[in-house]
Amino acid sequence: MLTILFSAAPKDWPDYAERLPAALATAGIDARVVTETDAPGAVDYIVYAPSGRLRDFTPFTRARGVLSLWAGVETITGNATLTQPLVRMVDPVGLTEGMVEWVAGHALRHHLGMDRHILAAPGAWDQDCPPLARARPVAVLGLGELGAACAQALAALNFPVRGWSRRPRDVAGVACHHGDDGLGAALAGAEIVVLLLPLTPDTENLMDAARLALPAPGAVLLNPGRGALIDDAALLAALDTGQIGHATLDVFRVEPLPADHPFWSHPRVTVTPHVASTTRPETAAPRIAASVAEMEAGRVPAGLVDRSRGY
Amino acid sequence: MLTILFSAAPKDWPDYAERLPAALATAGIDARVVTETDAPGAVDYIVYAPSGRLRDFTPFTRARGVLSLWAGVETITGNATLTQPLVRMVDPVGLTEGMVEWVAGHALRHHLGMDRHILAAPGAWDQDCPPLARARPVAVLGLGELGAACAQALAALNFPVRGWSRRPRDVAGVACHHGDDGLGAALAGAEIVVLLLPLTPDTENLMDAARLALPAPGAVLLNPGRGALIDDAALLAALDTGQIGHATLDVFRVEPLPADHPFWSHPRVTVTPHVASTTRPETAAPRIAASVAEMEAGRVPAGLVDRSRGY
Repeated sequence: MLTILFSAAPKDWPDYAERLPAALATAGIDARVVTETDAPGAVDYIVYAPSGRLRDFTPFTRARGVLSLWAGVETITGNATLTQPLVRMVDPVGLTEGMVEWVAGHALRHHLGMDRHILAAPGAWDQDCPPLARARPVAVLGLGELGAACAQALAALNFPVRGWSRRPRDVAGVACHHGDDGLGAALAGAEIVVLLLPLTPDTENLMDAARLALPAPGAVLLNPGRGALIDDAALLAALDTGQIGHATLDVFRVEPLPADHPFWSHPRVTVTPHVASTTRPETAAPRIAASVAEMEAGRVPAGLVDRSRGY
Repeated sequence: MLTILFSAAPKDWPDYAERLPAALATAGIDARVVTETDAPGAVDYIVYAPSGRLRDFTPFTRARGVLSLWAGVETITGNATLTQPLVRMVDPVGLTEGMVEWVAGHALRHHLGMDRHILAAPGAWDQDCPPLARARPVAVLGLGELGAACAQALAALNFPVRGWSRRPRDVAGVACHHGDDGLGAALAGAEIVVLLLPLTPDTENLMDAARLALPAPGAVLLNPGRGALIDDAALLAALDTGQIGHATLDVFRVEPLPADHPFWSHPRVTVTPHVASTTRPETAAPRIAASVAEMEAGRVPAGLVDRSRGY
């Protein structure tokens, strides 16, 4: 029988206390799930979120995998005590669909100029129509599970979509660019820019003053990726000049975003409180069980992190 | 050479003055387009919008078709002087894509609860997440060109979609209902209801108090169809009880919607000023030319109105 340590915020445990053992049983894994242990050397797998207390992985000498409940793993990849294989959450239903819905919704909100109708004064009857989506270029930076799914959903809504990733990728219906040279081509003239990159030393502050100058004047920035992908001061400056017409931000360097942060009160910024996509226990528990099953069978699970890349 | 009378608001003419003759030439039609005529008996086709002055079609004894610039033709089908074939605008690019974008955008806006973030006070960090779209039933009433396209776009976003039409229809990926008996099944428990029916004596006030009670409590109503599909007083009552949680309305019995109409100030109503979809000259002009070409060749053009049905 395997021993699986669940190490996340105590508030998360009730969501998994029944689901995770049930999902493991369904996957044919004989395991017990514990939230504490006196014998770390006997733990086979660790289900992990940074919201839990675990910081030192050294005592888990037998652990064959650390399974992150989160898709973003930048807070753990720098942990020198973590020598076990790390698996980030890949959940095509819960995580991916939720992200597609947030990105498509906010892209269409800005495309349609919805805010002026939501906030309209009585009698406001301005019939200016937006162009069709087919005339509104969108750039999606990051073509992993989430970025590729969002790029395809936006393409299905008729937006012309350019994608960008560090290494070459091929996403049907999306004009894919890659590498340092490709970033300018993806951003140039884009009217909506979506950030879905992992946070690594290479991507931190990717959207600096120079990159923020590349999209079309008045472009909209959507960031459901990671806060530190953006140079906050450069973004505020670009919003003030109107080069960036609006930023809808779901992630921040410090969360919750402090109430006195200028993003809250800037008229061209919408803050959503890290809700673009969330790990949903009903779909995440079976994914954890599947990763355990794959690793026990000696196979590579979806989402195995390449520590040299950082994701 | 054919004579084609363009009868719409004078402000519309500059959009068509070059495009329409060019589109006719491209379609191989030898024609001149006029905005006035002293010889109505010599007119072969009439391009028509209710915003023009034409009300009496009797003198156009040779006219073989009246080609509406608008998709909705309820203001003309009751005109007893109109004995010529009437063709409503069917424009898979301009009209249909615009409508799909408005419907998908507002469905996602309500699905995601976007307004509370757009209007959030600084520091508001409430991480309640919506369910996934797959858990949010949507009903689309009307499965013509616009309704079917919107139903499929919503299904592609993973909403479970029920469609309803007067006569049986089959739309891939949509649970289709029809007739009086099917309406209850389409509406029951729906969390978002989209109205895309033509306005006819059968559909006027379709959404009355009894029908508004069928969707799930707090359901959202989107009306980009025609204002008179809804019993306004019944809708206001349903909004006041919360049975309808929000209504986003693009069309009204009187347009522009008078500034003192209660829809403007109701906290659960968003007014958009008849912009959900608009006839776009760049795509509409080729459609008009195509209809002329079809009719000259003795074929039935897309959008030929069945006067007994009213659309």
